Amino acid sequence: MRVKVAIIGSGPSGLLLGQLLANAGIENVILDRASKDHILGRVRAGVLEEGMVHLMDEAGAGARMHAEGLPHDGISLAFDGRDHRIDLYGLTGGKRVLIYGQTELTHDLMNRREASGGISVYEAENVTPHHFAGKSPYVTYEKDGITHRIDCDFIAGCDGFHGPSRKSVPEGAIRTFEKVYPFGWLGVLADVPPVNHELVYANHPRGFALCSMRSNTRSRYYIQCPLDEKIEDWSDERFWDELRRRLPEHHAEAVTTGPSFEKSIAPLRSFVAEPLRFGRLFLVGDAGHIVPPTGAKGLNLAASDVHYLFEGLMEYYGDGSTAGIDAYSARALSRVWKAVRFSWWMTMMMHRFPETSDFDQKIQEAELDYLTHSSAAATALAENYVGLAY
Amino acid sequence: MRVKVAIIGSGPSGLLLGQLLANAGIENVILDRASKDHILGRVRAGVLEEGMVHLMDEAGAGARMHAEGLPHDGISLAFDGRDHRIDLYGLTGGKRVLIYGQTELTHDLMNRREASGGISVYEAENVTPHHFAGKSPYVTYEKDGITHRIDCDFIAGCDGFHGPSRKSVPEGAIRTFEKVYPFGWLGVLADVPPVNHELVYANHPRGFALCSMRSNTRSRYYIQCPLDEKIEDWSDERFWDELRRRLPEHHAEAVTTGPSFEKSIAPLRSFVAEPLRFGRLFLVGDAGHIVPPTGAKGLNLAASDVHYLFEGLMEYYGDGSTAGIDAYSARALSRVWKAVRFSWWMTMMMHRFPETSDFDQKIQEAELDYLTHSSAAATALAENYVGLAY
Repeated sequence: MRVKVAIIGSGPSGLLLGQLLANAGIENVILDRASKDHILGRVRAGVLEEGMVHLMDEAGAGARMHAEGLPHDGISLAFDGRDHRIDLYGLTGGKRVLIYGQTELTHDLMNRREASGGISVYEAENVTPHHFAGKSPYVTYEKDGITHRIDCDFIAGCDGFHGPSRKSVPEGAIRTFEKVYPFGWLGVLADVPPVNHELVYANHPRGFALCSMRSNTRSRYYIQCPLDEKIEDWSDERFWDELRRRLPEHHAEAVTTGPSFEKSIAPLRSFVAEPLRFGRLFLVGDAGHIVPPTGAKGLNLAASDVHYLFEGLMEYYGDGSTAGIDAYSARALSRVWKAVRFSWWMTMMMHRFPETSDFDQKIQEAELDYLTHSSAAATALAENYVGLAY
Repeated sequence: MRVKVAIIGSGPSGLLLGQLLANAGIENVILDRASKDHILGRVRAGVLEEGMVHLMDEAGAGARMHAEGLPHDGISLAFDGRDHRIDLYGLTGGKRVLIYGQTELTHDLMNRREASGGISVYEAENVTPHHFAGKSPYVTYEKDGITHRIDCDFIAGCDGFHGPSRKSVPEGAIRTFEKVYPFGWLGVLADVPPVNHELVYANHPRGFALCSMRSNTRSRYYIQCPLDEKIEDWSDERFWDELRRRLPEHHAEAVTTGPSFEKSIAPLRSFVAEPLRFGRLFLVGDAGHIVPPTGAKGLNLAASDVHYLFEGLMEYYGDGSTAGIDAYSARALSRVWKAVRFSWWMTMMMHRFPETSDFDQKIQEAELDYLTHSSAAATALAENYVGLAY
């Protein structure tokens, strides 16, 4: 089999890139180790920047997102027992974010791909990129005991942090930067109405809490917890109690509780690989960088990578110029690092750090005080939250 | 002897407070351990916020400052071999800073005090505040072998970080917050024209450098150095060479060198004491808080403390209300912590940290990149640099 672009990974970035390429007549195949059901069972983020929304429209997969997504014009930072609203819409001259679960978005992209006849291979084992340093790369995988080979012009590694793409790069060719945070997020999903019509980020002496949502009837709540916490020690009741203790009183009293149908603890990490291009292999999204979820940037960074790579590939297949793909890594990384910085900053500002000094704790409080009293500082937060320009 | 307010310390904050009180007919005395010449021989900062300028005018000591001070409308952040100007004036709706050496300002305030008949006692040994928890505080000091006592309504501790005021507070009554930075500033004063008409803050792989000035013919330069560096190892020639290596080429080539007449290494520290009031004793300026010089905030914070304390005392002597002096500590500290945060942030962003991780170094670079490309972020810097509202 031969295609122009072999895409490893059938998450949002792989699907989005595949669809944009398909719409432009550039043949591609998507390979994923997991089954379609497994992919659709993953619980992930759901705060979309306008750039991501635009790409979904461009892919022709935006109809349900617009119908069901919840536009949010602000977020609340809660501390000292009070809400401090950041008016995203007002501070950025009319930009907002759209709340729409990644699972739904993946579903829409898969449906669009099927409708347009795109080829996806699920449960492809041992997917491996080859010879991407040369002019004739290919990808191999195994399925039902048979090894398959796909020849291509380019390989897009959209296969996440643990996928084979980044791991196939020779060690000396890649530099990595990493920070691991000394806590995790214990999250639950429950079919209860969200406590607030916008997201609430709470900094409390007992730790961070986030009131988020997937829809008007499905809430996503998180609380900061030690990394060695055990999920089985957290009954729903204990979770709801702890969440309420970390929220301002008017929110705490308004929390609707109910049985959770997903509960998990996720570690928080910042990670960046440089560069994001190795000959004819490109790293896209989580394969190249990870951010802690505090800034809601992971999915959106995958989208901006897709944007830059798609532009580069269009140039290449349009007029044969390699300028766009040559610039991919630098252009993507420039935006990646700004979002990594923002996510790090939001994480540092909103969490309680187990070994922080009294001075550093006061600096955090001074930052929140300044931020919520300065239009310039609030605008800096807002413009990052809704997404910096591509 | 009996006065309304006994002021310990004849630096800018003590002199400024004394003059404002004197102008309002509130009798005060200023005590200082040092001689007048010693105080005037100190080399200190020289970037004045508009609030400080206004207080100098209110004290009736601003004439020479306006005639000789240099208004600056911007600063440069230099990194990656380039200057990035922060347009203070444009970003803050017309605010600027005034470059005028603290030594000159102290001189002007001393002259004004002498002209208006204010009493200052220099070379007062063992200055000690007493009984400030009660209604009848007093201050003792020794001079020429004789112990003197000054009874007063209030004591203003304007005696710097090492002065007796803060040390006289019972240990359990005070909380302190501190951060010591792992480097110092090696500074020189030289009678050479400054390399740039505005200040240049340089972040370079070899370390931070600052091109500052006292006047159009007197330059003040600093370079970051290890804390164990020895001043005798730094010839003028070595200093100029190292300074030039840390500046963008067009600045490096333009540095006018000459013999230094002051050279010293200063450690960098953040420090805050809480509260700033203990009965009838008030801590003002460096006696209560220290900032690293990166944000040029030390002198200006002393000025805002003076402003709040003067307002409180005016209220007390006007209508007998203690509301203003009761609020002094909280009002002053709210502004102090914002300036402590800003000074810490500028310090973290502009210096090279000996034990930083590769990730943290990249975050620093991303912050500089973001800051110099975002109007909101640059405005946040600018509004802090020119001084937040009192």
